Amino acid sequence: MNLIILKDNDSLGQNRYRLEDHRAEHVTSVLKLQVGDSFQVGLLNGPKGIATIEEISAKSLTVRVEKLEEIPPPKPVVDLVCALPRPQTVKKVLFISAMMGVRSLYFIRANRVEKSYYQSPLLEPKNYTPHLIEGLSQGKLTRLPEVFIYDRFKVFFENVLPELEKSSNTTPVKLAADPETKISLADVKINESGRLIFAIGPEGGWVPFEIEMMEGAGFQRFTLGRWILRVEHAVTAALSQLELLCSDTGG
Amino acid sequence: MNLIILKDNDSLGQNRYRLEDHRAEHVTSVLKLQVGDSFQVGLLNGPKGIATIEEISAKSLTVRVEKLEEIPPPKPVVDLVCALPRPQTVKKVLFISAMMGVRSLYFIRANRVEKSYYQSPLLEPKNYTPHLIEGLSQGKLTRLPEVFIYDRFKVFFENVLPELEKSSNTTPVKLAADPETKISLADVKINESGRLIFAIGPEGGWVPFEIEMMEGAGFQRFTLGRWILRVEHAVTAALSQLELLCSDTGG
Repeated sequence: MNLIILKDNDSLGQNRYRLEDHRAEHVTSVLKLQVGDSFQVGLLNGPKGIATIEEISAKSLTVRVEKLEEIPPPKPVVDLVCALPRPQTVKKVLFISAMMGVRSLYFIRANRVEKSYYQSPLLEPKNYTPHLIEGLSQGKLTRLPEVFIYDRFKVFFENVLPELEKSSNTTPVKLAADPETKISLADVKINESGRLIFAIGPEGGWVPFEIEMMEGAGFQRFTLGRWILRVEHAVTAALSQLELLCSDTGG
Repeated sequence: MNLIILKDNDSLGQNRYRLEDHRAEHVTSVLKLQVGDSFQVGLLNGPKGIATIEEISAKSLTVRVEKLEEIPPPKPVVDLVCALPRPQTVKKVLFISAMMGVRSLYFIRANRVEKSYYQSPLLEPKNYTPHLIEGLSQGKLTRLPEVFIYDRFKVFFENVLPELEKSSNTTPVKLAADPETKISLADVKINESGRLIFAIGPEGGWVPFEIEMMEGAGFQRFTLGRWILRVEHAVTAALSQLELLCSDTGG
């Protein structure tokens, strides 16, 4: 846990918070902190700050939070469109997306998505949110990605996405991962202060109809490399490669 | 399973192989192939080819393999030095390394590595090899990465690594991931036809003494990006970023 995330329902008012779960355990048993010690915290969807321990009891921890500082938003702003994978992989995609600062996560249907995946209890906010918070905690971020779940491919690209674009005043760069192309991210014009949408296909890849429809919706195909990756590795690879392209040159 | 990997002990001689495990199950139940059908296979540490089904019984599958073709080795040749993580993460690092074509994998001790991790039965070849083969199968590669396990940090960098370098006729570019630097892979001179060693630290990072010693051994620090990643994501990120830098421009 690199950053302890505090939620509204932990608040006691007046910048004081009480932790009663694995976070309290982490602070006392792993970090081995005591009354008067401080550690970094992030307020969910808010700033980071310093928490000082006021009280430790058998099962809870009371802290006072100070020195709150907003976290600058990641640039470019990245949304992820992901063919809904099996639940074990959904957990990994949620974690990675939160850790790496994805703004919105759209799970969509695709030809190679099993319909049964939509029955998973994991797709309820109360079940998926903990995986997002764990990712924020790892990545030292606080902004919870928004998660949207669509069960029709065509409707998403023909109706949902155009509506989303209308409501925004910048046009995103739209990219669909596809091992069949030779074009890499290095060949794509990326606006660092703009928006970008990555579409990541299901295990087995997109079918030709899906590629056509995405291209019709303004997506450009790109390859992540020579390998065939699993969904969670493709998400990590895409976000890492983008980070490299947008990194400040320090050498 | 993107590529079925065949091993020596599957061989019946004369290019015929018998499969009796989950691979047979995959071919008949997932791919739904029948006698006379063909699918792609890779011989472990050898070429890829086409297997044609000769016989299907309740529990086994007999195939004849033809059209063998060597797979060109990945470039640059990458070795990975990884602070030994907990066993669940070791499995992921093994899988990812094999999937993404790492040649040799050196697990080493570091200050933030728990000594108990060295007791894991997973560190025996018979237990770790299946994870490597699963990774090859995903990445459509056949060359099994070599795995080495060292329990002393200093000895590895002062004795083992120099010996390895002496035995090779090219000097590798040596890079240590460290979130504390601003230098990204884009700032590093990479020889695409040469060798490269990535060093990935433990959860919590390297300690200053380790950074110093690695720098003394010719390692240059680099950052994978703004986030704090878990070990398995750092491995994926490093290999993906390298792939981007070495990709042919196709656009």
